[in-house]
Amino acid sequence: MSQSIELPPAVSPQSLCDRYLAVRSFTMKLCETLSPEDCCLQSMENASPVRWHLAHTSWFFETFLLKQDSSYGVFDDSYEVLFNSYYNAVGEQFPRHQRGLLSRPTLEQTFAYREHIDQAVAERIKAATDDDSHLTRIVELGIQHEQQHQELILTDLKHLFSHNPLFPVFRDGKSRSSQPHGTTTAWLPGLEGVHEIGHAGEGFAFDNESPRHRVFLEQHSIASRPVSSGEFLNFIEDGGYTRPELWLSMGWDFVQRTGCAHPLYWFQVDGSWQEYTLAGLRPLDQAAPVTHVSYFEADAYARWAGGRLPTEAEWEVHAADVPREGHFADTLLASNSAIHPASIDSEDDFPVQMFGDVWEWTSSSYAPYPGYQPAAGALGEYNGKFMCNQYVLRGGSVATSSDHIRATYRNFFSPDSQWQFSGIRLAKSE
Amino acid sequence: MSQSIELPPAVSPQSLCDRYLAVRSFTMKLCETLSPEDCCLQSMENASPVRWHLAHTSWFFETFLLKQDSSYGVFDDSYEVLFNSYYNAVGEQFPRHQRGLLSRPTLEQTFAYREHIDQAVAERIKAATDDDSHLTRIVELGIQHEQQHQELILTDLKHLFSHNPLFPVFRDGKSRSSQPHGTTTAWLPGLEGVHEIGHAGEGFAFDNESPRHRVFLEQHSIASRPVSSGEFLNFIEDGGYTRPELWLSMGWDFVQRTGCAHPLYWFQVDGSWQEYTLAGLRPLDQAAPVTHVSYFEADAYARWAGGRLPTEAEWEVHAADVPREGHFADTLLASNSAIHPASIDSEDDFPVQMFGDVWEWTSSSYAPYPGYQPAAGALGEYNGKFMCNQYVLRGGSVATSSDHIRATYRNFFSPDSQWQFSGIRLAKSE
Amino acid sequence: MSQSIELPPAVSPQSLCDRYLAVRSFTMKLCETLSPEDCCLQSMENASPVRWHLAHTSWFFETFLLKQDSSYGVFDDSYEVLFNSYYNAVGEQFPRHQRGLLSRPTLEQTFAYREHIDQAVAERIKAATDDDSHLTRIVELGIQHEQQHQELILTDLKHLFSHNPLFPVFRDGKSRSSQPHGTTTAWLPGLEGVHEIGHAGEGFAFDNESPRHRVFLEQHSIASRPVSSGEFLNFIEDGGYTRPELWLSMGWDFVQRTGCAHPLYWFQVDGSWQEYTLAGLRPLDQAAPVTHVSYFEADAYARWAGGRLPTEAEWEVHAADVPREGHFADTLLASNSAIHPASIDSEDDFPVQMFGDVWEWTSSSYAPYPGYQPAAGALGEYNGKFMCNQYVLRGGSVATSSDHIRATYRNFFSPDSQWQFSGIRLAKSE
Amino acid sequence: MSQSIELPPAVSPQSLCDRYLAVRSFTMKLCETLSPEDCCLQSMENASPVRWHLAHTSWFFETFLLKQDSSYGVFDDSYEVLFNSYYNAVGEQFPRHQRGLLSRPTLEQTFAYREHIDQAVAERIKAATDDDSHLTRIVELGIQHEQQHQELILTDLKHLFSHNPLFPVFRDGKSRSSQPHGTTTAWLPGLEGVHEIGHAGEGFAFDNESPRHRVFLEQHSIASRPVSSGEFLNFIEDGGYTRPELWLSMGWDFVQRTGCAHPLYWFQVDGSWQEYTLAGLRPLDQAAPVTHVSYFEADAYARWAGGRLPTEAEWEVHAADVPREGHFADTLLASNSAIHPASIDSEDDFPVQMFGDVWEWTSSSYAPYPGYQPAAGALGEYNGKFMCNQYVLRGGSVATSSDHIRATYRNFFSPDSQWQFSGIRLAKSE
Repeated sequence: MSQSIELPPAVSPQSLCDRYLAVRSFTMKLCETLSPEDCCLQSMENASPVRWHLAHTSWFFETFLLKQDSSYGVFDDSYEVLFNSYYNAVGEQFPRHQRGLLSRPTLEQTFAYREHIDQAVAERIKAATDDDSHLTRIVELGIQHEQQHQELILTDLKHLFSHNPLFPVFRDGKSRSSQPHGTTTAWLPGLEGVHEIGHAGEGFAFDNESPRHRVFLEQHSIASRPVSSGEFLNFIEDGGYTRPELWLSMGWDFVQRTGCAHPLYWFQVDGSWQEYTLAGLRPLDQAAPVTHVSYFEADAYARWAGGRLPTEAEWEVHAADVPREGHFADTLLASNSAIHPASIDSEDDFPVQMFGDVWEWTSSSYAPYPGYQPAAGALGEYNGKFMCNQYVLRGGSVATSSDHIRATYRNFFSPDSQWQFSGIRLAKSE
Repeated sequence: MSQSIELPPAVSPQSLCDRYLAVRSFTMKLCETLSPEDCCLQSMENASPVRWHLAHTSWFFETFLLKQDSSYGVFDDSYEVLFNSYYNAVGEQFPRHQRGLLSRPTLEQTFAYREHIDQAVAERIKAATDDDSHLTRIVELGIQHEQQHQELILTDLKHLFSHNPLFPVFRDGKSRSSQPHGTTTAWLPGLEGVHEIGHAGEGFAFDNESPRHRVFLEQHSIASRPVSSGEFLNFIEDGGYTRPELWLSMGWDFVQRTGCAHPLYWFQVDGSWQEYTLAGLRPLDQAAPVTHVSYFEADAYARWAGGRLPTEAEWEVHAADVPREGHFADTLLASNSAIHPASIDSEDDFPVQMFGDVWEWTSSSYAPYPGYQPAAGALGEYNGKFMCNQYVLRGGSVATSSDHIRATYRNFFSPDSQWQFSGIRLAKSE
Repeated sequence: MSQSIELPPAVSPQSLCDRYLAVRSFTMKLCETLSPEDCCLQSMENASPVRWHLAHTSWFFETFLLKQDSSYGVFDDSYEVLFNSYYNAVGEQFPRHQRGLLSRPTLEQTFAYREHIDQAVAERIKAATDDDSHLTRIVELGIQHEQQHQELILTDLKHLFSHNPLFPVFRDGKSRSSQPHGTTTAWLPGLEGVHEIGHAGEGFAFDNESPRHRVFLEQHSIASRPVSSGEFLNFIEDGGYTRPELWLSMGWDFVQRTGCAHPLYWFQVDGSWQEYTLAGLRPLDQAAPVTHVSYFEADAYARWAGGRLPTEAEWEVHAADVPREGHFADTLLASNSAIHPASIDSEDDFPVQMFGDVWEWTSSSYAPYPGYQPAAGALGEYNGKFMCNQYVLRGGSVATSSDHIRATYRNFFSPDSQWQFSGIRLAKSE
Repeated sequence: MSQSIELPPAVSPQSLCDRYLAVRSFTMKLCETLSPEDCCLQSMENASPVRWHLAHTSWFFETFLLKQDSSYGVFDDSYEVLFNSYYNAVGEQFPRHQRGLLSRPTLEQTFAYREHIDQAVAERIKAATDDDSHLTRIVELGIQHEQQHQELILTDLKHLFSHNPLFPVFRDGKSRSSQPHGTTTAWLPGLEGVHEIGHAGEGFAFDNESPRHRVFLEQHSIASRPVSSGEFLNFIEDGGYTRPELWLSMGWDFVQRTGCAHPLYWFQVDGSWQEYTLAGLRPLDQAAPVTHVSYFEADAYARWAGGRLPTEAEWEVHAADVPREGHFADTLLASNSAIHPASIDSEDDFPVQMFGDVWEWTSSSYAPYPGYQPAAGALGEYNGKFMCNQYVLRGGSVATSSDHIRATYRNFFSPDSQWQFSGIRLAKSE
């Protein structure tokens, strides 16, 4: 592990173990309402079966922590290949596009695998000394990794369910009353000059957030909240999807090829817009942030609106001063709310909504920061090798846990991706 | 229904009901060992999830029998589209290649659907008069249809399982000792002249088996048993898959494009041949009929062996005199045997093995018999519309029930198909 | 060469040479109006550049005749691979789908190649003895082969030109006045019983026309002329392309996938139907035989019309008694007429139009005749290896030379092919 | 036209006209050795036929200059669609992937079109007043556009020719003796701090080079010359193409999918490396800069070599001080040299080779500069809409004219592109 994954030095084994078990059990909680069938299907190459996520996150601890200890008793030898995602340094991988061809191990067997891992990890942590920083780092990385897959469980499941004319309900969730913002958005000013971005100091961060470094920004402003579904509807009604001048060339090809004419999961039923949510098919909430748009749609919308997408540096400079408030997976679940973006309730005039709800596409291609060093060994494959033809998203979403996100966090997807909770924040150059 | 689906006039409601329930319950028996996961995955467009077969066969009775009665209470309106296979006259169909994207209805709900149908059909039969020939025909067609899908359940499941490195065992089944035939095969003579083929008289037959008609055959001979795996191995070892002169042009393209170099489900493990069977991975049984070969492979083998495939007329003329003996799904299951082709045990010198074990590719393109009339209405889509670019197979396989096959039965698949229990019988022109 | 390519024993070297040169020069005549650009483009994998046809037909004589003589001086060594079409026994082939990537040899160099071959072949023939039947057979086969490629030059060129919005004119050709038949078609009766089809006796035939053999036919009748464009228009206007019940399943897929809604080369211009012909874009000639339809369209039309396509045996039995009259490539060119099908002018009440104009799809899958033996050696690849998933067409077309067609001639294409001059003849079972 | 395409105010009509005619005639010179066949083929969607380039560059002047004058007589109405590349604001475009299906207009007709345009443009320029800055801008843009297509003529032709086993020679060209550098490369230091990049001041630049703006750079160094073929050979021999840890994930997929194992146009002949050049197949020149590598290969090489690719800002900051020397299309052609990269001859110890020879991949995704405004109207589609999933290349190549390149010039291609003369320059962070 390189210097780029930083952790606070003092974590007691007990508190680490508690945190480990808490995060692992949240994964199980997400699956509470699911049938074995729900957990084994794969709807596209980019999405994985829930059960694969359950096994792979366990594989992660087994491979990078438990197997380092020669006395560890492997659960099943065949899992090394079956649940390796993309670590060439670990070895062969079962083909990604065939993850949905595995009916075995069953869900029950997978749960048993998780239990086996949890016991072994808990024992391993408890047996550690207070200053075993290597252990701490691996466990913390595994926890963060688990949280990333919790998000994917939700988005992959939603993608799968959306193909079913029965529109399955993941969790019903009470309807949050969304108070429309009206038309006002605050424009937060950003000053020209040299700024710093990237991770430094204490707390966990992925290697791709380092090193902290200087960037030069021009004067600009950034919107105080994401674009709403109602605003995006105006774009549609103004012919947004039929006007090539609003689109990147590759975006226009995407529209022509796929016939895309609205955000993913929107349906027109008897002349009115509905959206498929994890709480089922519902009337479109026009006040809520628009979600499930590709980079292409975000970029076209911004051009239509007379603005542009922010760079990731602009986004981060603003976010550094904004409290980490918004709608998150853990808090929504705890309050029995639907896992779906919402406008924010506030007496304040212009509350700033930068975290949770929807990931926000930035105009920045995912690239290494100056001086970036991937972690050593197989874990170096975690982030660095994906730095090509992907765009950075910031801020987390309703599928993210609140303790998983931070201002420096860099998410990334290819520009045609729609199945994440991805939305739009506008920026302006003047 | 046209005249081409013939039935014995006198079937009592009670005996029809008994037969209905027996066949339906055999479907359930086939699923006894399966998990919900096993039942919901789809491994390719041509194969369907087991659960889809369970629902579709029920849909068949609901659509063509129960819904004709206006007082019938539909189980779930959405099933009309979800479980329609290809009946355009009934209406829209859920896309075939997405059958594996449906996690709902669950397996349990599907079982409930089957029960609902079984009760309604049983009531409907019992309420019928003795001479309700329309009812009898539809029920009998539905029973035969159910049996066809029982076969597909086995072949589709085998295809799915074969992708899993764990090589799941469907049913263990005791190993049948196969007595090698040695190298001798009897060549049964066929006389030149006008012969009759096709269905006539009593008993059920599909519309594609009618009308019975005359064909002119040249003198020829036909092998008394299918080609064995050991014989096919000779073909492989003689470079069969690398010699273009042995192949149809389209077959050679198939070999080049897919890299096919042996029958489907054969694996070379540490230098010796194994085959994946429904009883797991086993050493290749060289005495057993070779199976899971495409028409292309069957044709190339025949050319290599100095023979040819029989026409379907030649096959039928011979089979008309052969007793319906061999290995079938129902008898194998009843005796706890592995569902896999085997050589036949016999003290006889040259027993004729034409039924069961493996479907045998004929050289005949699937086409209408002279004067063929498809059934009227939606059921006319059952067979006729598939008469293009498919080749006829005869005789049934280990996945067929013994009371489902007959000499006039025409099965058909595209020439690149390998996932059925398809094998090779040789013929010669002199 | 097997016995299946039969030739009259007595052909004098001089007359053979004359015929050779006449056919070769007709190829050149076809290219008179073409630019080098016209000759080098490839519009799809199934079509080849004109220049490739020019070279490949020469390659045929070089490979199978000239190179057999060790003293022959090869024109260019690289041509052996470059212009080998599909003869695996000769060796490697330049990839078919890349024939349009060869700008060299240029058209001029290709003409030089042809001249080189022509001189060498002429010398070879003149040096032969009167009874060199091997030479005669190869030369005759090469001549027939050349004529087949003359037809492909026309159809491949038409396909290429059709993509050009300028709609290039191949040859202007005076417009033949088509006298509409009215609605009457004679139905020629065919008697039930054993008939003979296939080649026997004198004259050239391809190996796939042998051996002559007996078939049993039911009583039927066959139309005296092909279906006209006007009749096909009725099918379109009756919703023919939108009614799944009229189509083979594979045909319906074809329609859905390609959006096909009329014969190839038909265009609707300002509300009226035009067709692209080798004489340019012209108003649809409703009296002329419909052409450029796939097997799927032919089959659907026949079903709509209450008939069916004839089998190839039925077709041949009728054609055996019909004079070889119709519109052919050589006669049309000689009379400066457009190379396009036309109705026939006649004072007779029901003239029978079975040759020329359009190839007629039969319902017969292309298969070997009983006892068929392909020619020995590489030439055995000429026909036999294509006997799979293709349908037989009979009768020749406007792109065929009049001395190239005969009643036993079997042409074959895959059922989705539209770029040949393919049309429809109806048959009826009663 | 926006402010972003800047031009010197004072260009006399006469000198503009001279320059116009000189550049246009250089295009014709490039085609001197080509046959009509060479000019009409298209080898892949990304490449166009030479003749298309000849017509499209003329179309550019016709569309954006001549047609603005209502008295202009259009050469051929159909060309508006036929030769529109991607300007949606102008109208429909003939499909890009079908440019190789147009045999008409012929090469001769295309030359006539060019003449027509040249006369009209020359007249239009001569009739202009001295200060018609709009005219000057459009003509200058058209000239630069013509030069870009001159480069594409060479690279597209090379790609086409490379598929021909005859390996056509474009121009023979004397062999330049390449003096190997040995193993030394100078590392030019770059200082940390705020730098300026982008176009400002006089002279032509494309809109994507503006506005000039500040960037913050860390301390780094950059190699004085591109990586040579000999150095790249070391990478190959060290297993570079078989070690996933050296590759971006998408690069590794590219290698697996395509089987790529060396730069495009390298061939191993009898155990020694040859490369196909525009002067034919030649032994690999190990001293010359490696060329025809994708971004993926450039990135993997850099990782293997312990360095990285420079950002475009780093590249530009260094290039700003380097004289515009190297091997260019115009100078190579003038000296009858082969159009192929070479090492530079020098008595200096470490001459800096940044221009000409090979375009150099940078690690920068192609994106708008802060405050970028595309040109108004259709010409705004020239650059801006391609700013997605492409990487910036800098410095020009042997296919670039020497007066076309400059330090601020941004070229861009997708990361899998190999058919440009693209090479590698290394950078280091310390």
